[in-house]
Amino acid sequence: MDLLERLGLLGRRVLLLHHDDLGLTHAQNGAYQALGFPTGSVLVPGAWASGVRGEDLGVHLVLTSEWPAPRMRPLTPGESLRDEAGYFPSSLEVLWQNARLEEVERELKAQIEAAKRLFSPTHLDTHQGAVLRPDLAEIYVRLAEEYRLVPLIPESLEGLGVPPVFLPELERLMAQVPFPRVRFLDPYGLPPEERLGFYLDLANLPPGLYYLVHHSALPTPEGRALPDWRTREADYFALAHPEVRRVLSEFYPLTWRAVREVLWGAS
Amino acid sequence: MDLLERLGLLGRRVLLLHHDDLGLTHAQNGAYQALGFPTGSVLVPGAWASGVRGEDLGVHLVLTSEWPAPRMRPLTPGESLRDEAGYFPSSLEVLWQNARLEEVERELKAQIEAAKRLFSPTHLDTHQGAVLRPDLAEIYVRLAEEYRLVPLIPESLEGLGVPPVFLPELERLMAQVPFPRVRFLDPYGLPPEERLGFYLDLANLPPGLYYLVHHSALPTPEGRALPDWRTREADYFALAHPEVRRVLSEFYPLTWRAVREVLWGAS
Repeated sequence: MDLLERLGLLGRRVLLLHHDDLGLTHAQNGAYQALGFPTGSVLVPGAWASGVRGEDLGVHLVLTSEWPAPRMRPLTPGESLRDEAGYFPSSLEVLWQNARLEEVERELKAQIEAAKRLFSPTHLDTHQGAVLRPDLAEIYVRLAEEYRLVPLIPESLEGLGVPPVFLPELERLMAQVPFPRVRFLDPYGLPPEERLGFYLDLANLPPGLYYLVHHSALPTPEGRALPDWRTREADYFALAHPEVRRVLSEFYPLTWRAVREVLWGAS
Repeated sequence: MDLLERLGLLGRRVLLLHHDDLGLTHAQNGAYQALGFPTGSVLVPGAWASGVRGEDLGVHLVLTSEWPAPRMRPLTPGESLRDEAGYFPSSLEVLWQNARLEEVERELKAQIEAAKRLFSPTHLDTHQGAVLRPDLAEIYVRLAEEYRLVPLIPESLEGLGVPPVFLPELERLMAQVPFPRVRFLDPYGLPPEERLGFYLDLANLPPGLYYLVHHSALPTPEGRALPDWRTREADYFALAHPEVRRVLSEFYPLTWRAVREVLWGAS
């Protein structure tokens, strides 16, 4: 499948500009409202999930809860998905060591079902790449098909921090799935002072289908309670900058909703 | 039992100054840290529960989630405790109509057990008075005894908004329980502009055991996302006021921890 061809966008520079971690904090939701871009995904177990309103929202599937606070709990009773205080495990290592397949499937389904009570989801992705363990990735793809939600699938796994032991099976799975693959752009690890330059440099990209993930959050005391608040604020300030917005306006603004309609028709 | 006599405080003005709804928002936790009073209780299903650190913390038992956002979910699977999106019901009426006794008991136990993984709880109380349905109140008292946590029990049920149909059974239960009863002081419903006066007027109280419940929250965007933020900020500004703090300093500052030691010995 060539998605851009089916969309009539071959030879264009096409951008999915994606806001991660909605529903986590009021500051994250506030940045989404303030920036005005439609696409993002919601941490359904997050306290503020019910406060997100938007046009192109997905389910940011959660299996970990990595900060001391705020923390998130599973929606289902699976013992392999929680620590002693009942929260999701705080690291991918612990998750991947313990998570039982049937408990993961039940939990991810519960998150999708709960999301459907809050908004009309268009796509799936996953917090911290929790579904990269290959047997979990199979569930992820299967649930995407079952619920007709477009799963985020990168063009390449290089540079995404995937444990090498997972790579062969993941590559095999990705080669089979009937979903478009996107070129990943992720400024998360850049120092904040390089953020504006990163966004301005997007002007130099050649044609293609790009997926840019950002974590914008308002500069508030609550937003700054997260250990990685600096990178969140840097995204917010850059994406509010008029020159960055001019650069972004030169891309075709694709939504997961439009991709979903290509794959399954309008719902 | 006369608690004040056992504490050697007979004839004194004794105050339990209690901070409600900790763990709900960053703004609520921030006010607790800023004010420096030790006593409060934590909404364990709240996203920020794991961020509360303090000397005299209780479990603010939750069975309702009344705001559009943030919302809270049960820790246990009971169907009678959740709405279609999996949150606690948004009103006491719906809760009291549907809640099954065994599901309530399981949920309240889970909240106490989870709290014990986060801090060393000293007492029990309940969000929105959710346990006032008499059969739930029996569970509340029984769990207090089982876990050796002092339950909040008011001296009188008048003016607390208890449905009249519950009153006879509640009065009978309260007359039997071996726990101290406290005189309730609650400025929540006062207009913000009367808040400072309310606190200053405490100077005129006669001797006795008083329980003053406040809902202080920092004046931040997140704090102001709650519909009742004005009453929370009014408490915060009043309790930060030097003249109010002078008035409070004339009371004996009782903690639930001290009450617990009288009832069960030091733990």
